[in-house]
Amino acid sequence: MSLPRIAIDAMGGDEGVRVMIEGAALARRRHDQFKFLLVGDEPRIKSALEAHPNLRASSEILHTEGVISGEDKPSQALRRAKGTSMGRAIEAVKAGDAGAAVSAGNTGALMAIAKLSLRTMPGIDRPALAALLPTLEDHDLVMLDLGANAECDARNLVQFAIMGAAYARVATGREQPRVRLLNIGTEETKGTEMLRDAAAMLKASAADLSMSFDGFTEADKLGRGDMDVVVTDGFSGNVALKAVEGTARFVADLLRRGFTSSLRSKIGFLISKPATELLKHHLDPNNHNGAVFLGLNGIVVKSHGGANAAGVANAVAVTARLLEENVTERISADLARMGGTSLRKTRVQEERA
Amino acid sequence: MSLPRIAIDAMGGDEGVRVMIEGAALARRRHDQFKFLLVGDEPRIKSALEAHPNLRASSEILHTEGVISGEDKPSQALRRAKGTSMGRAIEAVKAGDAGAAVSAGNTGALMAIAKLSLRTMPGIDRPALAALLPTLEDHDLVMLDLGANAECDARNLVQFAIMGAAYARVATGREQPRVRLLNIGTEETKGTEMLRDAAAMLKASAADLSMSFDGFTEADKLGRGDMDVVVTDGFSGNVALKAVEGTARFVADLLRRGFTSSLRSKIGFLISKPATELLKHHLDPNNHNGAVFLGLNGIVVKSHGGANAAGVANAVAVTARLLEENVTERISADLARMGGTSLRKTRVQEERA
Repeated sequence: MSLPRIAIDAMGGDEGVRVMIEGAALARRRHDQFKFLLVGDEPRIKSALEAHPNLRASSEILHTEGVISGEDKPSQALRRAKGTSMGRAIEAVKAGDAGAAVSAGNTGALMAIAKLSLRTMPGIDRPALAALLPTLEDHDLVMLDLGANAECDARNLVQFAIMGAAYARVATGREQPRVRLLNIGTEETKGTEMLRDAAAMLKASAADLSMSFDGFTEADKLGRGDMDVVVTDGFSGNVALKAVEGTARFVADLLRRGFTSSLRSKIGFLISKPATELLKHHLDPNNHNGAVFLGLNGIVVKSHGGANAAGVANAVAVTARLLEENVTERISADLARMGGTSLRKTRVQEERA
Repeated sequence: MSLPRIAIDAMGGDEGVRVMIEGAALARRRHDQFKFLLVGDEPRIKSALEAHPNLRASSEILHTEGVISGEDKPSQALRRAKGTSMGRAIEAVKAGDAGAAVSAGNTGALMAIAKLSLRTMPGIDRPALAALLPTLEDHDLVMLDLGANAECDARNLVQFAIMGAAYARVATGREQPRVRLLNIGTEETKGTEMLRDAAAMLKASAADLSMSFDGFTEADKLGRGDMDVVVTDGFSGNVALKAVEGTARFVADLLRRGFTSSLRSKIGFLISKPATELLKHHLDPNNHNGAVFLGLNGIVVKSHGGANAAGVANAVAVTARLLEENVTERISADLARMGGTSLRKTRVQEERA
């Protein structure tokens, strides 16, 4: 069976068509059996492809005129989607012309269009945005939801855990991912009722779901490498992710100030470059690019608007691995194994409480 | 009029009596008109005071036998409070024997005891925990709530803004503090209804409250130094604070690994020490020690359990400044100026919606 194609919205992102195409070409070298559907302005795509004959040979171009801008509100984007590169890339997934879409465009617009066009998977109430965070160990951490749902209930969190575990199996190779819920303390009595309910459901079902549910964690433990998935509502997840990004940048700014404050510091910086390069490598968002929108009938990946070609390549490679490992099908199977009934029953119990 | 005393729970904290006493002595040098009530085991306090004759001369000792431990649950702590150093320190504030209490003990216990004993100020529904975060500019940022209230409503957030602004006037000297609400985007339509309601109330009342309400901010912008107060619910605030702390530690660990990975790196580290010292100074939690529990009839300050003497001194100095500037009275005045009625009206509108 041939692998499904990856649709690339070539027009999204701050860096233009050339970076998207170069990123796709880099990713294709790692996953050379993949075919691509490049969606956007045909003359510009053709021109960018001149430097990448291998990608050209495994791609088809789908010409579109319209582009969703960074300023378009989700409601405007939905109305305009049909003629745009973003809208057509997602439409290709819906029509079965591609298995996944990658875009570096407006996140809110991408989520709105993807949700309306692809619809949520059977058994999933709401899709979630997941990304990989660096840890001090040799594997990344899957974190979700990162902002698709500002408010959630316990049932949503359980579904996010299932989706996150499926992603972690692909990202870390661990068959029984270690899953935790983000909370403001680790004792069972901490946090909100939503979290305590979700913990009870996961505790009861973890064995059926081939995951190890290890209870609560706090936001200062995310980098330690002792878990594979951290689950939270979209508000807290977005806050945590941005706090991590902002602090990393803050520290980098401080270091830069320090290292340029005197000649001595400048010399020290040059000598210790291997040390600061390690830091740069770990903290460079390009190395963790590609937020995955999980829970839809098809995979949609958001590349960071400011990502460089290596960053785009990471996002496309993530997409390729999710397709290779049939993540969507595996989530369906897990949902079936847990049984919609038990989740539903717990919801009723919640409402009664 | 003489300044109110500061009650010090000498028994809290991982580092013992000596560190609490040394911290108080350091703080007294900066605020030499202050008197202290040192609460705890008298022989140990007396022994620690031998090295600090100036502090001894301006202190009274209140002997207690019991100690609240780190393992005590809030409910247990409440039952045991009477005979403990923490309980008696707070009791001294209630009885007017002290204007404020400082403890490095169990946070949950401290909040529970303080709330029950001191009660919330008129006009405040719920107290909040506030702390100072470092920024790239030459002033700190007041952030609240950091975990006292896992769930909040819009009215709570408005009250937190009033309390945070009062604190920021003391901490930054700015008479019209720049206040923002933490959200997952800066557009007016972003986030939860609670945040949009709180924003509307603050927009309407900012001029009366001598603050500049600047809308929403995101968690990656906290270190930029373009605001003085960031307001959020206790869940997100705790997540953001811990994500900042965890990332700072993560980066420090990475740097340590890098700098010790080779002889070249080690030499570079020694030469560039002034640069990394700047970082250490900025990120050392001792330099930002002292989380203030605001909104009670009296001031209660939590010093970090692991703080050193300089850290304790910072927490005590924060307490002294809050007393010198009559922060509790200023919060009352702001609440009166805003008018309980307008807040109440908005709540009714909310419930109707």
